[in-house]
Amino acid sequence: MAMNKKPLKAKGNKARKKQLLAKEIKHIDITKLPGIVATVDSMKSMAFSARDLARAADIFDRMLKDKSCGVILTLAGSLISAGLKKVIVDMLRNNMVDAIVSTGANIVDQDFFEALGFRHYIAGDEFKSGMYDGELRELAIDRIYDTFIDEEDLRICDEATQKIFDSLEPGNYSSRQLIAEFGRYLEENGGPKTDDSIIYEAFKRDIPIFCPAFSDCSAGFGLVHHLHSKDGDPHVAWDGGKDFYELTQLKIANPNTGIFMIGGGVPKNFTQDIVVAAEVLGHDAPMHKYAIQITVADVRDGALSSSTLKEASSWGKVDTAMEQMVFSEATLAVPLVVGYGYHKGSWKARKAKKWSSILDRALATA
Amino acid sequence: MAMNKKPLKAKGNKARKKQLLAKEIKHIDITKLPGIVATVDSMKSMAFSARDLARAADIFDRMLKDKSCGVILTLAGSLISAGLKKVIVDMLRNNMVDAIVSTGANIVDQDFFEALGFRHYIAGDEFKSGMYDGELRELAIDRIYDTFIDEEDLRICDEATQKIFDSLEPGNYSSRQLIAEFGRYLEENGGPKTDDSIIYEAFKRDIPIFCPAFSDCSAGFGLVHHLHSKDGDPHVAWDGGKDFYELTQLKIANPNTGIFMIGGGVPKNFTQDIVVAAEVLGHDAPMHKYAIQITVADVRDGALSSSTLKEASSWGKVDTAMEQMVFSEATLAVPLVVGYGYHKGSWKARKAKKWSSILDRALATA
Amino acid sequence: MAMNKKPLKAKGNKARKKQLLAKEIKHIDITKLPGIVATVDSMKSMAFSARDLARAADIFDRMLKDKSCGVILTLAGSLISAGLKKVIVDMLRNNMVDAIVSTGANIVDQDFFEALGFRHYIAGDEFKSGMYDGELRELAIDRIYDTFIDEEDLRICDEATQKIFDSLEPGNYSSRQLIAEFGRYLEENGGPKTDDSIIYEAFKRDIPIFCPAFSDCSAGFGLVHHLHSKDGDPHVAWDGGKDFYELTQLKIANPNTGIFMIGGGVPKNFTQDIVVAAEVLGHDAPMHKYAIQITVADVRDGALSSSTLKEASSWGKVDTAMEQMVFSEATLAVPLVVGYGYHKGSWKARKAKKWSSILDRALATA
Amino acid sequence: MAMNKKPLKAKGNKARKKQLLAKEIKHIDITKLPGIVATVDSMKSMAFSARDLARAADIFDRMLKDKSCGVILTLAGSLISAGLKKVIVDMLRNNMVDAIVSTGANIVDQDFFEALGFRHYIAGDEFKSGMYDGELRELAIDRIYDTFIDEEDLRICDEATQKIFDSLEPGNYSSRQLIAEFGRYLEENGGPKTDDSIIYEAFKRDIPIFCPAFSDCSAGFGLVHHLHSKDGDPHVAWDGGKDFYELTQLKIANPNTGIFMIGGGVPKNFTQDIVVAAEVLGHDAPMHKYAIQITVADVRDGALSSSTLKEASSWGKVDTAMEQMVFSEATLAVPLVVGYGYHKGSWKARKAKKWSSILDRALATA
Repeated sequence: MAMNKKPLKAKGNKARKKQLLAKEIKHIDITKLPGIVATVDSMKSMAFSARDLARAADIFDRMLKDKSCGVILTLAGSLISAGLKKVIVDMLRNNMVDAIVSTGANIVDQDFFEALGFRHYIAGDEFKSGMYDGELRELAIDRIYDTFIDEEDLRICDEATQKIFDSLEPGNYSSRQLIAEFGRYLEENGGPKTDDSIIYEAFKRDIPIFCPAFSDCSAGFGLVHHLHSKDGDPHVAWDGGKDFYELTQLKIANPNTGIFMIGGGVPKNFTQDIVVAAEVLGHDAPMHKYAIQITVADVRDGALSSSTLKEASSWGKVDTAMEQMVFSEATLAVPLVVGYGYHKGSWKARKAKKWSSILDRALATA
Repeated sequence: MAMNKKPLKAKGNKARKKQLLAKEIKHIDITKLPGIVATVDSMKSMAFSARDLARAADIFDRMLKDKSCGVILTLAGSLISAGLKKVIVDMLRNNMVDAIVSTGANIVDQDFFEALGFRHYIAGDEFKSGMYDGELRELAIDRIYDTFIDEEDLRICDEATQKIFDSLEPGNYSSRQLIAEFGRYLEENGGPKTDDSIIYEAFKRDIPIFCPAFSDCSAGFGLVHHLHSKDGDPHVAWDGGKDFYELTQLKIANPNTGIFMIGGGVPKNFTQDIVVAAEVLGHDAPMHKYAIQITVADVRDGALSSSTLKEASSWGKVDTAMEQMVFSEATLAVPLVVGYGYHKGSWKARKAKKWSSILDRALATA
Repeated sequence: MAMNKKPLKAKGNKARKKQLLAKEIKHIDITKLPGIVATVDSMKSMAFSARDLARAADIFDRMLKDKSCGVILTLAGSLISAGLKKVIVDMLRNNMVDAIVSTGANIVDQDFFEALGFRHYIAGDEFKSGMYDGELRELAIDRIYDTFIDEEDLRICDEATQKIFDSLEPGNYSSRQLIAEFGRYLEENGGPKTDDSIIYEAFKRDIPIFCPAFSDCSAGFGLVHHLHSKDGDPHVAWDGGKDFYELTQLKIANPNTGIFMIGGGVPKNFTQDIVVAAEVLGHDAPMHKYAIQITVADVRDGALSSSTLKEASSWGKVDTAMEQMVFSEATLAVPLVVGYGYHKGSWKARKAKKWSSILDRALATA
Repeated sequence: MAMNKKPLKAKGNKARKKQLLAKEIKHIDITKLPGIVATVDSMKSMAFSARDLARAADIFDRMLKDKSCGVILTLAGSLISAGLKKVIVDMLRNNMVDAIVSTGANIVDQDFFEALGFRHYIAGDEFKSGMYDGELRELAIDRIYDTFIDEEDLRICDEATQKIFDSLEPGNYSSRQLIAEFGRYLEENGGPKTDDSIIYEAFKRDIPIFCPAFSDCSAGFGLVHHLHSKDGDPHVAWDGGKDFYELTQLKIANPNTGIFMIGGGVPKNFTQDIVVAAEVLGHDAPMHKYAIQITVADVRDGALSSSTLKEASSWGKVDTAMEQMVFSEATLAVPLVVGYGYHKGSWKARKAKKWSSILDRALATA
């Protein structure tokens, strides 16, 4: 069975590569920015996106005040590589979120990647032009708009995911279960090599993370390699239907829910759909009571990313009384909205819901 | 085991509902629009999107002329409900595409849905405002921007997917295998109740369709219900890693590839990634040689939907010699680009690649 | 009085410049594309932008059928350099438009510029990156995204406008009057050095062209130079208030109006405002009866470019019964909408309104 | 001479109108938000718009540190009605800006309007849909997306501009001269009926304000009415060429310039063009040394609003060393960028340039 044993090596000049990967992306720390509250409050009676953002921040605060409300955070777009990791970790640490539904890239390629000790780097302005992408390819540097990643590091991340899959009992797993194993791997290997890790923090706090397109990320390479190496023998499989089933169980167990959506895509749609799924399973689940979305998407093309929250209400998924879209790129709006929620402090009266333990108990008794 | 046996019923006025669902969406038939070629040719030496579109159409024609090139079509956004179904079916019928990678919504909620005899409807302009979404909810009418769907029909579609899952041998399946079973179900039930069906056409022609976020659609409800009804017994599972493995096998078997991307999201990213996956499995796979993308997404936010094709080249996924982004809403640009390819006729010299049979043979011998 | 007498000279390599300016932009000829009608008709029962575009085309056709309706075309964005010149000239030639309100750039820097014998050029894809703008500066090549202009040619255009101003009787002129003089200049100098010229065609047909920000273009340089050279003596002045007065007189003389807006900005806003201006002058002018707009602008930021036509109705400017926005880049949508109107042929029953002669007569008797 | 003497009256229910116009837009006060500095500093090493915004804020601070640099602020889009008035007034009060180039709407319809004692109002979320625009029309309420204006107030503003024109000596004026007369009118009538007025603050501080499309605003109605009432007699005229001439004189007198652009359109283009105009008049003017732009516009359609600052450098207008685009809606980004500049305090060492007095002296000696 032919398998790729030689590590990826950049072909270009090492010194040049080192020079390009010199300045690290730094994650914003909203806990040190109390001034955000007054700034957002000052936007309440303006117009356009400022007013929308202030209202979204207020709805987020209401979600946190409503103690029975389970908060589901959905993530799409390159958020972790863009410096929003600590914002999300601070939400986990302070009981501001009870479940995450994300693209695989944010969770595996970016958060797990940093937990393995790797970093994202600031690309010089000239690289945005795309004119140097050929050289970057030679140097094995991947580019996300204005950010660099060392592809050699990323291949090590791919391999780490395979190691984890190889170590598990063959069988079918939800992405939540597999991602929890990523957290356990970090725990058993001396903890994350970074101050803040979403996967690790969620693991320690029994907060479930779902990636409904889990093979579309670094873990996908691990899955493919694992599957290939087993050559027909029993193996570890990601069972995507189980993801949907588990997330629906949470809606059934905790009917009052709010969703905080960063970007759209599969995470957004998947999370909205659990209202209908609960109904399909015979439960009279209410629509999501609170819903905010921060997105650059456009409302005019019917893409999943861009259906408005009002539109979602026609599908019976989102209540319209407490919903707000904010049309802004995430790096600008997310620190303001989450920073507002953090410094208002309504989360202090909230308890951890530890939803992963509910799901694990259900599975243990099943 | 409590399960939802009572069919969904709209609460509102039946006459009003009938009135709202009176005008069907009609799918554009590019085979009857030979004038597209001259129109697109006239755009070649203009500027901006016209020039980009003409170049994309030319690259599509080159893909079709390059007989060894396998063409992979990726679909995101609500395309089928928007009237693009026949465009895609005509691509399948005329050997213009060898594999489809799509959101589940396009394939199941919209194409399979129409194959079951249901239709999409034109919403009046006033409904775009969102002001009537409460009434629509009462009437069980779902809205996609300017298009209506009868939620009662959609629930029947959900149930049909469960019936299919219930009828299969327990075990792990790729979305490709499950979607092929949807085609077989149509075949065995008198064929599709519509002139044109993507699932059915692909089934008859051994063209694989992958949905890398398969539980994020009508089939997801079927999967959840099936899983629930089995109550721990062996059941049918969608194995998402298998999807990635199979698509990668196609890249290995047919290294020369071109991708035609409508929208971005998971289908785009997943398909680009098979170049790296093939490499991970020890094969020296070339980058995608041709790549065109039609999208409304923006390049500035690092979302997966919006990474440019140039950016993808830094990742070693897409060659830059023959790539073109077209920034346009799909309903305008897709008929022009595909219509151009159709009436230029380069597909006439192409043979069907029947990639599903390759995969099925591999599985049979495995 | 210090004045710039030496012509601008590029500093860089002449051969390189020649090579960069080798491929001319070619203007699309919709009169040779009868297939557009069937294509647009096929989009009527689709969704999203296709349906919007088909409806806009239909409204344009209705404007032309309604013989008393005066059609005002507004232009913003680089349309002429992008290859849309002949589309507009064909509208003028075939009584499809009765007045133009435009940015100065389209009319002077681009149309008059081509009438002087100069051309726009196709920039290679790599120039879009902006990485070569320093070299272009050295070569005196101006770039509009993917299009090149020879700055040396443009300076000659600037000077030609000054020559015209120098030749006129001192006094206050509307931009319409000045632009008519540009047409006369072409007439007296052997006609335009190009097959199609908006300024010249409008001049011959007594169709008024207004540029409500007339000093914001090549003519602005001519005005400044003219003013400077007169050193306090009586001179030719562009009287911007006169523009508004004249356009309002047309609304009063011909109350039934339709507007065809390409882009937004000052031309759009200025034209919508004449309804209110007519009212201010004591006339009970109806709102614009028909209104279509083709724009890439976004509705969410309150910019003038992006106020929707519905929003304009709250201002009493645009009737909502026959209005349609098309969210598309102009080079794609304009040929389809105008081509539809052209080949439907409703303009054949329309008479030339010769609005400039109305204004000139009014001025003569004033 | 028929003229409109009867004031506009809303036809609808007065109580309903009062209810709709109950909540005033409040202008953000960045002087009270020192927390902005730490927030923006925390965005420096992130990616995407956060990094861009932090760099723009830094460039703004550098403009202010560079004492010889003249700062020109350009305004497009509905900024004053959106709550950004005080931000701009604070820039004027603290020597952070030396000239303004704006759409007429911001300066006359919105700032002068508020100085006359009128206000902008918050529209309820449901009005964004456009479904109530017919009712608004009846009530004489104008809507800008999510903001209301009382059209009866606006007509009084129109008339006030006419009164000012009627009171001046006949002759040709630049928009700068006319707007200064608006400031004098406020001064002579008891000062502005609002705490903060851009026109008044600029008047008192000899800061020039230009509106290069001056007839495209409330003042245009005043100009038209004035012209009409003079019936051929000598009258006050807005001489648009003079605007360009005056702004160019400032570039010649103070060659080191930086531009802070909010939105694009005519103000942006006009201001960039003075570099070339100075050259045309025989002066070797350097490009604008600093340039930042906050815009939602898109780079792909060649509209004036969207040409990037890099593109402007090919035209010899903007230096690329110190330029930064921020793709964000203005209400979010402007408070952060200006607040950063304000609290960094580099303006404290700057002197007022009093550019209007330079121009007035030049005119007096001419």
